[in-house]
Amino acid sequence: MRRGTNLPRVGGFNQRVVLDRIRRATDGVSRVELAADTGLSLQTISNIVARLLARRLVVEGERKVEGRGKPRTMLHLDPQGAHALGVHVDPVVVTAVLTDLDGGVVGRRIFPTPSGPDALVAAVAESARELVDEADIAPGGVLGLGVAAPGPIDMPSGRVINPPLLDGWADVPLRDELAGATGLAVLLEKDVSAAMVAELWRGNRMHEGTSLFFYLGFGVAAAVAHDGELAAGTSRNAGEIGHLIVDSDGPRCGCGNRGCIGVCASPATLVAEAVERGILDVATPRATPRELDAALTAVCRAAAAGDESAGEVLRTSARRVAHGITLVADLVDADVVVFGGPSWARLAPVYLPAVRAELAAHATLREMHAVEVLGSAVGDDVGAVGAASLVLDDAFAPRPSELIGRSGAVLP
Amino acid sequence: MRRGTNLPRVGGFNQRVVLDRIRRATDGVSRVELAADTGLSLQTISNIVARLLARRLVVEGERKVEGRGKPRTMLHLDPQGAHALGVHVDPVVVTAVLTDLDGGVVGRRIFPTPSGPDALVAAVAESARELVDEADIAPGGVLGLGVAAPGPIDMPSGRVINPPLLDGWADVPLRDELAGATGLAVLLEKDVSAAMVAELWRGNRMHEGTSLFFYLGFGVAAAVAHDGELAAGTSRNAGEIGHLIVDSDGPRCGCGNRGCIGVCASPATLVAEAVERGILDVATPRATPRELDAALTAVCRAAAAGDESAGEVLRTSARRVAHGITLVADLVDADVVVFGGPSWARLAPVYLPAVRAELAAHATLREMHAVEVLGSAVGDDVGAVGAASLVLDDAFAPRPSELIGRSGAVLP
Repeated sequence: MRRGTNLPRVGGFNQRVVLDRIRRATDGVSRVELAADTGLSLQTISNIVARLLARRLVVEGERKVEGRGKPRTMLHLDPQGAHALGVHVDPVVVTAVLTDLDGGVVGRRIFPTPSGPDALVAAVAESARELVDEADIAPGGVLGLGVAAPGPIDMPSGRVINPPLLDGWADVPLRDELAGATGLAVLLEKDVSAAMVAELWRGNRMHEGTSLFFYLGFGVAAAVAHDGELAAGTSRNAGEIGHLIVDSDGPRCGCGNRGCIGVCASPATLVAEAVERGILDVATPRATPRELDAALTAVCRAAAAGDESAGEVLRTSARRVAHGITLVADLVDADVVVFGGPSWARLAPVYLPAVRAELAAHATLREMHAVEVLGSAVGDDVGAVGAASLVLDDAFAPRPSELIGRSGAVLP
Repeated sequence: MRRGTNLPRVGGFNQRVVLDRIRRATDGVSRVELAADTGLSLQTISNIVARLLARRLVVEGERKVEGRGKPRTMLHLDPQGAHALGVHVDPVVVTAVLTDLDGGVVGRRIFPTPSGPDALVAAVAESARELVDEADIAPGGVLGLGVAAPGPIDMPSGRVINPPLLDGWADVPLRDELAGATGLAVLLEKDVSAAMVAELWRGNRMHEGTSLFFYLGFGVAAAVAHDGELAAGTSRNAGEIGHLIVDSDGPRCGCGNRGCIGVCASPATLVAEAVERGILDVATPRATPRELDAALTAVCRAAAAGDESAGEVLRTSARRVAHGITLVADLVDADVVVFGGPSWARLAPVYLPAVRAELAAHATLREMHAVEVLGSAVGDDVGAVGAASLVLDDAFAPRPSELIGRSGAVLP
């Protein structure tokens, strides 16, 4: 049932709106501009800015003279005003980052994924401790720990249910175990959702309209945001697209259909096709995720070096993925698609032009608007930075749902 | 850019929240209950109720004694407090309805779709006039006219771009022409979006979490809602799913792939398969939409009468559509799917069990939650009632986006 809203909620929301505006103003912004941009009164802006200054989230900068008015003090985000930890659990590597309030990476740890959840929890806790120690942050200066993990995730209990490719992971209470091991408040989300939150926090192209994030790693997944807010779904597990059929003449999937995107875009398929063409020699059925990942890198390097056969393997997969993007973009009426995830940087040179061409030629809604296709604004760490962004977003992002007390993730 | 919110917006939103709660209380609701349910103070509730009573949107009913407290006056919606007109433009028939504030149908006109937009506008204007005259509504008692049309639609200009199956329709300024012909404020939406809004207005199962509406007519389309609010997409044209591949061994589509859902579920395909099996004798390639529609009815009747071959035609199509629903439900993490549209009532006996079985067996998220599958709560008129609901929804539904001045549709 819809609930009404009230003054404290409105005050909190407006404060988030103002902080967001200051954060996104690369050259600073004055109180007068803030009032004009947000539609709030100058008095309200002054009160909010005073609170933000007192909390050291914002600093006053230079004074700027414009026209004949009084000089205006420019306001800037203080990136040191808050920090967050983020961890991305991938089948191959774990990436842990400490970010500042702006989502900028202050410190980073990358290590091979330990086998089993107990070893993982211990290793993450140690990395978190080291990152905070090295950065010399005051106690309480870290808002919390975000974790990006393969789904599905049981959100009420913070349990990772049964991720494919992670041996020994079944119904693991990852959120509570990490909270116990680190003493921090922990937010747990699916990897693709966390990555989308990173793009929303750091990027500047997804704040109006409907946007897609497309995750390419051992699995593929898609996240949707409307007006800058993640559409997480009923159980916050939105984004499963593995069995979307993207080529009815494509390779057979375990589900019985041909050309499911999960098969078409998986490193195992790309590597197997490269082996078949004699580009590589890897025993794919028995290869570990790490071996497959290395083999995928080799295929991408061969294509970049001009190997036609390797190029064709990548172009075929790009065409199939592009068809999937077109289908999803038409379904949700998106005007921007951002790619990221562990495989992205290697695949980008072939995928970017292929996806752009497919959307321009075949999207049903191409007459209504173009669909911009971009690589992650965050880069290779998008999963880990996304995990940290969950914490920043929860604490500071202006979300209309906040106004009616239906915030998605809640710090425990 | 996110804007802040303010007291007038909060007041308007809270009034919508209270009206919505009263409207959904089938046995009435007291002021004390309203305060408890909405989280608003009793004083705020009293002020809002006084305004709703003065606007005749709400009436006071019986007094109810509960425990030892004062008897409480129960509040009910006054369905006569407002009316809306809705028109659904389908390739076969046009349906026009007048509804009361509760979305209940007060009057209805159904006529074969006139050829060309000019004849359509004239016929709709005449039907609208007749419906209002017959209902004996005070001048100004009709809030506006909603129109559900095949997409895509250019929303800023209210133009229907190029609907398949409507001859002579190219870039038609339908919204403004209907406003001119009727003197009413007109809201124009895609048919599937309007149908979803009808379900949100009349149904009681889609107010939390993510919901799907699946439209079956000459085209197929899907609408998504999050927490009771339609996700209309960047250009409000979300819902295109015609080329979603649902059976990689299915019939060939004009796009080159096999088993696109638009082909698998189209009346033309079902009728052609029935002809091939000797169930019917229709020259499908030259059949008009009306002839195909009649032939589809014949196939459904044959299946209902026990014709095994006709049953198999429908079951195959149901299995394919079910696979598509599973894909979309997994993508958006929906926990309810509602079917409707012109073909639905005929297909329901075969489709409902097939879709339920497919979701229970194959949805990736089935371990997280079941997906409920329902037929439209509104029934055969869902397009037209949906069109009227656009007007009611715009005027009265509580939408968080309203709080920050980003309402979707706006009455001109």
